[in-house]
Amino acid sequence: MPAYKAPLRDLQFVLHEVLGSEQHYAALGVEDATPDMVNAIMSEAAKFCEEVLSPLNKVGDDEGCTFENGEVTTPTGFKEAYQQWVDNGWPSLAQPAEFGGQGLPESIGNVVSEMVSGANWSWGMYPGLSHGAMNTIEIHGTDEQRETYLTRLVSGEWTGTMCLTEPHCGSDLGTLKSKAEPAADGAYRITGTKIFISSGEHDMAENIVHIVLARIAGAPEGTKGISLFIVPKVLPDGTRNDVHCGAIEHKMGIHGNSTCVMNFDGAKGFLVGPENEGLRCMFTFMNFARLGTAMQGVASSELSFQGALAYARERLAMRSLTGVKAPDQIADPIIVHPDVRRMLMTQKAFAEGGRALLHDAGFMVDKVKYASSDEERNEANELLSFLTPIAKAFLTEVGTEAANYGVQVFGGHGYIKEWGMEQIVRDNRISQLYEGTTGIQSLDLLGRKVLMSQGESLKRFTRVVHKFCQSLEGNDELAEMVAALAAANKEWGEITMQVGMKAMTNRDEVGGAAVDYLMYSGYVTLAYYWLRMAKTAQDALNAGTEEQGFYQAKIKMAGFYFARILPRISGHKQMMLAGVETLMALDDEQFAF
Amino acid sequence: MPAYKAPLRDLQFVLHEVLGSEQHYAALGVEDATPDMVNAIMSEAAKFCEEVLSPLNKVGDDEGCTFENGEVTTPTGFKEAYQQWVDNGWPSLAQPAEFGGQGLPESIGNVVSEMVSGANWSWGMYPGLSHGAMNTIEIHGTDEQRETYLTRLVSGEWTGTMCLTEPHCGSDLGTLKSKAEPAADGAYRITGTKIFISSGEHDMAENIVHIVLARIAGAPEGTKGISLFIVPKVLPDGTRNDVHCGAIEHKMGIHGNSTCVMNFDGAKGFLVGPENEGLRCMFTFMNFARLGTAMQGVASSELSFQGALAYARERLAMRSLTGVKAPDQIADPIIVHPDVRRMLMTQKAFAEGGRALLHDAGFMVDKVKYASSDEERNEANELLSFLTPIAKAFLTEVGTEAANYGVQVFGGHGYIKEWGMEQIVRDNRISQLYEGTTGIQSLDLLGRKVLMSQGESLKRFTRVVHKFCQSLEGNDELAEMVAALAAANKEWGEITMQVGMKAMTNRDEVGGAAVDYLMYSGYVTLAYYWLRMAKTAQDALNAGTEEQGFYQAKIKMAGFYFARILPRISGHKQMMLAGVETLMALDDEQFAF
Repeated sequence: MPAYKAPLRDLQFVLHEVLGSEQHYAALGVEDATPDMVNAIMSEAAKFCEEVLSPLNKVGDDEGCTFENGEVTTPTGFKEAYQQWVDNGWPSLAQPAEFGGQGLPESIGNVVSEMVSGANWSWGMYPGLSHGAMNTIEIHGTDEQRETYLTRLVSGEWTGTMCLTEPHCGSDLGTLKSKAEPAADGAYRITGTKIFISSGEHDMAENIVHIVLARIAGAPEGTKGISLFIVPKVLPDGTRNDVHCGAIEHKMGIHGNSTCVMNFDGAKGFLVGPENEGLRCMFTFMNFARLGTAMQGVASSELSFQGALAYARERLAMRSLTGVKAPDQIADPIIVHPDVRRMLMTQKAFAEGGRALLHDAGFMVDKVKYASSDEERNEANELLSFLTPIAKAFLTEVGTEAANYGVQVFGGHGYIKEWGMEQIVRDNRISQLYEGTTGIQSLDLLGRKVLMSQGESLKRFTRVVHKFCQSLEGNDELAEMVAALAAANKEWGEITMQVGMKAMTNRDEVGGAAVDYLMYSGYVTLAYYWLRMAKTAQDALNAGTEEQGFYQAKIKMAGFYFARILPRISGHKQMMLAGVETLMALDDEQFAF
Repeated sequence: MPAYKAPLRDLQFVLHEVLGSEQHYAALGVEDATPDMVNAIMSEAAKFCEEVLSPLNKVGDDEGCTFENGEVTTPTGFKEAYQQWVDNGWPSLAQPAEFGGQGLPESIGNVVSEMVSGANWSWGMYPGLSHGAMNTIEIHGTDEQRETYLTRLVSGEWTGTMCLTEPHCGSDLGTLKSKAEPAADGAYRITGTKIFISSGEHDMAENIVHIVLARIAGAPEGTKGISLFIVPKVLPDGTRNDVHCGAIEHKMGIHGNSTCVMNFDGAKGFLVGPENEGLRCMFTFMNFARLGTAMQGVASSELSFQGALAYARERLAMRSLTGVKAPDQIADPIIVHPDVRRMLMTQKAFAEGGRALLHDAGFMVDKVKYASSDEERNEANELLSFLTPIAKAFLTEVGTEAANYGVQVFGGHGYIKEWGMEQIVRDNRISQLYEGTTGIQSLDLLGRKVLMSQGESLKRFTRVVHKFCQSLEGNDELAEMVAALAAANKEWGEITMQVGMKAMTNRDEVGGAAVDYLMYSGYVTLAYYWLRMAKTAQDALNAGTEEQGFYQAKIKMAGFYFARILPRISGHKQMMLAGVETLMALDDEQFAF
């Protein structure tokens, strides 16, 4: 497994230079969060991630979790790392001061989260799941629930989970069957089986707070009869609750994280939020979880890139087509070969472009929380809700592509476990599935967000892109990229209109176009962030800098992205506009003979 | 793991109806190979694959091979299955009668090979590797070598390997270090370490015949000083040779096949073919091995499709966007959803299109062997050598895509080992790496085949496509597809010219364009085969048939391919024509900071 090195300089570039963290935090009234302070936090987090978490990444894969007598043992070192994480106060970083947190904005938690994700995704899922539980209880819980659960989650003494999926339903939560019976003591008795519960049982904390979707007896069918409950493993009075891990799954990857079947046998549960509004309350959770999952795609791209780059610089094979580059060696290092460079630069383009998108989304999360005006809050919230499915699905799809390039750069060695490159492919593969598959995210984007708002949610973003392009008028060096982005941005709107028109006569057109639409959107969105990075780099170079290479690399990488990645949109455009006719033409029984 | 069902009807369609097996075999003078006889062989092979091999596929993955005291134990049941394979005479099917074979053409072996590959790729690699060794010894061996080794390989008593890769070199064989010292007994003493030797050691046969590349003492450096040797595990006199397995690799997939480090410690080796012409002799091997690897992509697409289709018909989630389809169920089966259909049909398009391409290639192999005129032989050989890198790289790339769709259709369940869908992804991933990576195949296609022949090798194929399109003039039903194929076929030539022009001033343009060029070529090639299938189906429908659904499905699938897959070429075109400038612009030290 490649040793993870936190991309600190790049994070500083994105946060402070591209996104303007200083103005951002000042505008939010978070005066503490100066660039120096953010850098100090990042350096500390980087140390922990590089020294403690990264070495455990392969251990987690090799050992996996073990399940015996209802108990889960995490891989060697995971528990100790978690204790250190708690001792150092990381769980409380971006939590409210009134519950013991350090009161920093989510976006800073987001930055730490990226580093944890890159160093050891499976480990990061234990504290990561707590995060969603904290948000839910903070927003929808009672004072007493906050006092009892939130404070312990914030301190990291306890961890959290989200219990949604059941054996027969994942995407389609409307059909879930878990039951909640009101009892005389005011609590509910929860009965049912939940599957795929990440961090559902483990040995890293003394209690686990499950956030559970269930149906109160007599509630309406479908999504309108679902409520949300807190079901702690250990009840506040210290007795063991009737929720138990029945098994753990054997998976393609993320072996270090326990994926549990959780059996609720009349477990005591406490309603969070209003009856039958569980899905709405849970979405507090889901949006955050989706951004967190998008992070996995970026983290995988980054880690795989780091491993592949080191290898490409060392491995010798064949001579450059344009002549010998390393005459004193038996062959040239493979980084001289254009196709190896193409793979490395594609990984890098996804990692760095995705980073900019995700931390911009982090700033939007801050604005939703701290904005001084409703208008600003609303604007940030709408933009965020538009970008979330793009970030989640697009960045995880390209994350798998990037991880596969990492294997490919290693040749046959990439297939061998020892090197750790194939683990990244296996680990990342789940990110296209959980927290809503790529298909579900695409329907959310095209159906729920774009078409249901008559294109307004798209326009909100394309206006931002349009303004940015306008601001670059007369910028000769970037002119070609500006023109390409402006054209794609315009076309994005036109395609949306065309798909929307088709969908008016046939709703299946939405489903048939959705994934191509999402991928198209992702490539254009990343082009926007790459152009922003190029512009920031250009400004730095014009202002004079000692880091010429760093900034030049950004402009060159943007050029690469526009020349060698953005053109993928043309295929996606044609395929979605080809419509759904050929997709639906095959009768069900004609699929196989 | 989905139970494999041999696609017999589809194989019959491809072989007899699309490719015209009856005329083909008659023209070759292989009168025995009537459609009835081919069908009988296929049915027998199907039985063995479905009943014996398929159930061992997951066993192989779960158990893997074990290595102890220099010996490799294959997974439970592998050895017994191999014995049954030998007892039933399968190894000798397409081998020459004079060495104990049944004298059938390679193309029939190819068909059996597809079924074995679909049922259990890892198992199939044991007899599969023998195949290459047999070809090499048959063509380049002495009479004595044929008598000693070939007859035992044909009977299946012994198996074979190919020993090329060394720790420091895979693609770049010119740098290999293994040494061959001539000895007084006329044999050589082979010393060196070979890695990634598939089936290098196992418990399934009494002897293993290694075909080894090594450098005779005093031979020239580079590729011109490499010779080929037979190094048997057990020498003809019954003594154990000094070649031993030092370790087996722990891999992402194909756990059932032993991937060995082989140590040659002065092992006795016997020269095959002329001194220093080992690479040329070995290519006999490689071309066949490459088609065999292409098969893996088709087999993975087929198996994953079968699993995903069964699941999509059963799994209930959400309602069709155009209204309830299964009112008596809690939700609709997911096959109603356009995006699920898109994934299934993409898998199917790759499996069936790839099948047509591969078995056409099998027919070309026959022609090379049996053609009555040099002209016909040469034509077939040139076409085959053009199509081989396309088949190998393109079909394995899309095989991984297809296998990933299989996981995706299963949602979160696809990530769980129990279902076997993720195993297909892991198993297939090696196919993009061994027998020449996608990058190496792409350079072979664009650099060695197309540009070095001044485009002649491409024209040889585009003429075939062009003629076929011409023959469909006036065919209204297929007109849209004919026009699309004709346009792509023409554009293929134009793009080649443009890349060729660029390459004249900068050789790196070849490397920078190669993979996009290969993928472009693959999509157009598959379009040709899909149109051929559509035409055959149209003819059958016009002639009157009871299998209306079967033939209609072919035409509908062709329509799907042209509408929803072929447009991918537009992105590849733009990316390769964007040139290499942005790829080479980044200085080596600018890749990371």
